[in-house]
Amino acid sequence: MKSAMLYGAKDLRIVDLPEPSAPGPGQVRVRFGAGGICGSDLSYFAKFKVGDFAVREPMILGHEVAGEVAETGAGVTRVKAGDRVAVNPNQPCRVCRTCVAGRGNLCMKMNFFGSAAVHPHIQGVFRESLVVPEELCHKVPGSTDFRVAAMAEPLAVTMHAVNRAGPLIGRHVLITGCGPIGALTLMVARRAGAATVTVTDLADGALERARALGADATVNSASEAERVTSWAENKGTFDVAFECSGSMAGMHTAILSTASGGRVVQVGMMGDTPVPINRLMSREVDFIGAFRFDAEYAWAVRDLAAGAIDVSPLLTHSFPMAEAGAAFAVAADRAVSMKVHLTL
Amino acid sequence: MKSAMLYGAKDLRIVDLPEPSAPGPGQVRVRFGAGGICGSDLSYFAKFKVGDFAVREPMILGHEVAGEVAETGAGVTRVKAGDRVAVNPNQPCRVCRTCVAGRGNLCMKMNFFGSAAVHPHIQGVFRESLVVPEELCHKVPGSTDFRVAAMAEPLAVTMHAVNRAGPLIGRHVLITGCGPIGALTLMVARRAGAATVTVTDLADGALERARALGADATVNSASEAERVTSWAENKGTFDVAFECSGSMAGMHTAILSTASGGRVVQVGMMGDTPVPINRLMSREVDFIGAFRFDAEYAWAVRDLAAGAIDVSPLLTHSFPMAEAGAAFAVAADRAVSMKVHLTL
Amino acid sequence: MKSAMLYGAKDLRIVDLPEPSAPGPGQVRVRFGAGGICGSDLSYFAKFKVGDFAVREPMILGHEVAGEVAETGAGVTRVKAGDRVAVNPNQPCRVCRTCVAGRGNLCMKMNFFGSAAVHPHIQGVFRESLVVPEELCHKVPGSTDFRVAAMAEPLAVTMHAVNRAGPLIGRHVLITGCGPIGALTLMVARRAGAATVTVTDLADGALERARALGADATVNSASEAERVTSWAENKGTFDVAFECSGSMAGMHTAILSTASGGRVVQVGMMGDTPVPINRLMSREVDFIGAFRFDAEYAWAVRDLAAGAIDVSPLLTHSFPMAEAGAAFAVAADRAVSMKVHLTL
Amino acid sequence: MKSAMLYGAKDLRIVDLPEPSAPGPGQVRVRFGAGGICGSDLSYFAKFKVGDFAVREPMILGHEVAGEVAETGAGVTRVKAGDRVAVNPNQPCRVCRTCVAGRGNLCMKMNFFGSAAVHPHIQGVFRESLVVPEELCHKVPGSTDFRVAAMAEPLAVTMHAVNRAGPLIGRHVLITGCGPIGALTLMVARRAGAATVTVTDLADGALERARALGADATVNSASEAERVTSWAENKGTFDVAFECSGSMAGMHTAILSTASGGRVVQVGMMGDTPVPINRLMSREVDFIGAFRFDAEYAWAVRDLAAGAIDVSPLLTHSFPMAEAGAAFAVAADRAVSMKVHLTL
Repeated sequence: MKSAMLYGAKDLRIVDLPEPSAPGPGQVRVRFGAGGICGSDLSYFAKFKVGDFAVREPMILGHEVAGEVAETGAGVTRVKAGDRVAVNPNQPCRVCRTCVAGRGNLCMKMNFFGSAAVHPHIQGVFRESLVVPEELCHKVPGSTDFRVAAMAEPLAVTMHAVNRAGPLIGRHVLITGCGPIGALTLMVARRAGAATVTVTDLADGALERARALGADATVNSASEAERVTSWAENKGTFDVAFECSGSMAGMHTAILSTASGGRVVQVGMMGDTPVPINRLMSREVDFIGAFRFDAEYAWAVRDLAAGAIDVSPLLTHSFPMAEAGAAFAVAADRAVSMKVHLTL
Repeated sequence: MKSAMLYGAKDLRIVDLPEPSAPGPGQVRVRFGAGGICGSDLSYFAKFKVGDFAVREPMILGHEVAGEVAETGAGVTRVKAGDRVAVNPNQPCRVCRTCVAGRGNLCMKMNFFGSAAVHPHIQGVFRESLVVPEELCHKVPGSTDFRVAAMAEPLAVTMHAVNRAGPLIGRHVLITGCGPIGALTLMVARRAGAATVTVTDLADGALERARALGADATVNSASEAERVTSWAENKGTFDVAFECSGSMAGMHTAILSTASGGRVVQVGMMGDTPVPINRLMSREVDFIGAFRFDAEYAWAVRDLAAGAIDVSPLLTHSFPMAEAGAAFAVAADRAVSMKVHLTL
Repeated sequence: MKSAMLYGAKDLRIVDLPEPSAPGPGQVRVRFGAGGICGSDLSYFAKFKVGDFAVREPMILGHEVAGEVAETGAGVTRVKAGDRVAVNPNQPCRVCRTCVAGRGNLCMKMNFFGSAAVHPHIQGVFRESLVVPEELCHKVPGSTDFRVAAMAEPLAVTMHAVNRAGPLIGRHVLITGCGPIGALTLMVARRAGAATVTVTDLADGALERARALGADATVNSASEAERVTSWAENKGTFDVAFECSGSMAGMHTAILSTASGGRVVQVGMMGDTPVPINRLMSREVDFIGAFRFDAEYAWAVRDLAAGAIDVSPLLTHSFPMAEAGAAFAVAADRAVSMKVHLTL
Repeated sequence: MKSAMLYGAKDLRIVDLPEPSAPGPGQVRVRFGAGGICGSDLSYFAKFKVGDFAVREPMILGHEVAGEVAETGAGVTRVKAGDRVAVNPNQPCRVCRTCVAGRGNLCMKMNFFGSAAVHPHIQGVFRESLVVPEELCHKVPGSTDFRVAAMAEPLAVTMHAVNRAGPLIGRHVLITGCGPIGALTLMVARRAGAATVTVTDLADGALERARALGADATVNSASEAERVTSWAENKGTFDVAFECSGSMAGMHTAILSTASGGRVVQVGMMGDTPVPINRLMSREVDFIGAFRFDAEYAWAVRDLAAGAIDVSPLLTHSFPMAEAGAAFAVAADRAVSMKVHLTL
């Protein structure tokens, strides 16, 4: 089977691997439909690592995936051959102290497709064929575009972030950064009843997209810096901020613009970064991370299948897997693309 | 009346000011009993500012105070002449959006004794005589040491911090830094039922004090660095950390040592400081500030009066107000003193 | 000025009272535009009491109101003559222990229009002219129907209820009872992102309305009793239930149908009623009341003005104030009316 | 092995059953040390059922147990032969939706010793020998009285209840009913830092015990009924109430005496019971159940082993298992006994 395997920084090869063996009891073989390229895939591709996690052996990339059930093992009841499914890349152990406390997304022994966090690495989903436990397969209606179904993963990430923010009804929300994750957060925050959603970015194109997706206000944090600065006055303006830029500037904007007693949800990833501790602490702005998801994957599939959230405006590019290199180049160019998918 | 007034960095003078006019309706005149020197007083004294708040005119220092009711205005019913009282320095407006949301400690128009946060500054409490609204006066038993009663203020700060942490019963707690605030946090965390409390500091003397106050374990973060480092393993060790050192090292220890899904309460003050965002975010360790207090002042007075918390081991030095300069020098020397009080 | 004053059970008279004196500083005179009849008005009318609160002197009814600013007192800046305003009937004291804790809706000294809870009673809003503090007046766009603006009050009640439920995103919601409050709760729960909303009522007409307002499923709790019963199986079905029927049967359905660890928000009013304590307790279904509102009034006005919530399908009847008796009769007939308004 | 098996109401027989087979991999054989008689055991004994759960086949009673490790199966590392252990009777499945949400105590497929909730019933612990999974065994120091160790179970129940109440620091707490569960709740509420704890009961002896255990105030709800009534004034008196009597009167006292915005934690069990809904709802007193425990079992063992909670005053009677009938008679007589244990 064709697979997009990473051998080093910028060394992504389409290789022909043996098909996985037939699905065992409770397992399902899924034929690849579409796979989305995520920021962590881009980081692995560009730097052969994500944050502290260095790749130590050739690794198939990808964790956002949907496909068609090709074959089912003994005892499988949730799906049957021919079903279209979104595949949850998240497999918490359910028995570590963190799982038992209801925080499966933070599992101490997490299995997650296409991740170098553990060794040997968990191979990713950019391959023709995948054998997975039945419970990872979430059926979608037969007419669902595979690319839409594959969006369940990043959508679940943002649903988790919004869920971590507490009720949004009546609240004024700020989102810093409008890449795919910022844009999905905008959609989910609106779905969750935010009174208003304001979006910042450095690129006018991104802000235009944000307006098309229903942002109440958009601000270019470079060219409209005074507006951004004014939000910090009088102990802050927004009730909740979602930091989706992964940048120091975005994070400072999020913290300073949030009102006393409000909450910043950090969704973007970044390493050690200066934080205005006194401004955060003396106004008791809670600084809360949001990482991965658990139950939210099923929520995302449901909302996509029901049409409650329409991600199609984010699907800007698709490439056959054989052109994965070109796909990664386009995905890395934020001026050009939003979400880029591989297909067969 | 004698007052300890700050005219510039390290320029603290004992001046003779006119007595305040007689208490009006609902007001009380309190004769100074004892006043504690806080870290913010030390910062005003050393640098003529605290964080972003520069002193712009001569200011009487102090906000931790207890004394005797000398005189009461019309309609006062809570206290009478001769009563010993702790005086709450906190006067939120009760009508701004933050107050209305139940976060009086973050009031947008806070009056707080001895603070340059607003202009003209609110004069402090290091003076022979003080006229205050009745509701700021909390009666203590006639036998209470004024210095103990004055501890209601820093105790309230730490009660607020512990309250912000959520229930501590069954939880393993870390406290970084064991100055007066760290030591009070230790006492309050124990009172709140923490399963164990571990304390770090750089000074062995501070750790000895912590053990005497009931710490289950103490670790010198300089000489026992590997122990500190080991807490970060396996997704973290403590359920809740209170950062009371106001140092970058203490804050990093607090964040990295807290388990996935846990909480760091930032009590110490510091400016822009690098934070390991990914470690915080990918383990969803909530980073929560604790600033001042509101209802907790009454809680602190009650616990001090009832003997539920015994602060006497922290009362290391007292000086008559006339020797305020010497008092500030001793208070600034963490190797020598814990809490230093002025008396008449 | 014409006023709808209640002198006894079913004894509602249109009387001519003296105009209120001109608005003082910070006050506003509002000319009546429309006033909605609430369940508590109906109870006062039918029984001369609501729950434990008996009427002890003639009382003008009504607390859901909007109108036009006729005159402003000194220092008023939020509104000017000619503005259309929704008038918040809620005046918490802001200084009692409950207000200070951020629960202004539960104020120990609440002033609330048209309520016999205190004595002398606070007169209501069904009168030609009303003088109120400026901060109660919330401006709406000039084109807003007064009846829509008057809906801010019941909408705020349901926004408060939904806010008390915690985040609804991804959650399956049950609403028992689809009168005006149930219908508004349905709209707000949908706005707050509930995955699905299921509605029960005894009347097919109410269920038809619920479907028109976007309910995902509706169930007649009389004729489809087995469906209702089946929700209790396997430790419950819904994540959150809003009890809006004010009936024992509705409450039992809400409790038994909610899954272990879920939440029932009691919005309807009822006296002492048998509750299946063990079913609630052994499944840790939180039973949470929702009463009045505070910040939510402004949220409701904003959403009505922005068109984010469209209450027009609920506005079934209007009567001039002179025909208040007929209006009350229609409002009491749930088979006929949803929300009934008085106008001038 | 000797076992205390229930054949019908009041038909408890000491029977000789075959020893369980040797412990398999990861299993441990525990020799009975002491077993406490719980209210549910008393209910099974008296009525052959608990609440809705009828006994349908002979069942060994008991779920509060400690003993000595007699033998370990392959791969067991936590304990070795000769260790004293408290045995957690709670075995949640960890994979149902409730477990995954972090509510293991509400597991949809719970295994719990000595319970007729499932069929075939899970046999209880009142027998000479027990084979259990290793992870249920919690080691205690070799000097620990088995009866003290067996108290880990009811102590865990009350720790869970206190944990459900949120932070108690600064809060005024009411406990209605001072049997074993009320008394343990009193101890845990004090350990959790409650400002004051007030206890009601109908029996003066129980109140005397409560005072000996540190209650700040005790009130006989029969002979001092006006004091109880007065707590309802002015929107309520206590911040948190724990209902431990399992009686309608206790529950009404708990609800009415709790201040607006406070919380009632229902710990006692009772069937359908009238509740003053409007008083609960119009004051937004949260009514929260507390059922069983999960992580709290380990907390309880730790506190017992560390002497942080001293349950010895509650250990009023012990009987050899052969005299189980007498033990049950004494345990049922609340005027005479607190906690009654069986030993070998």
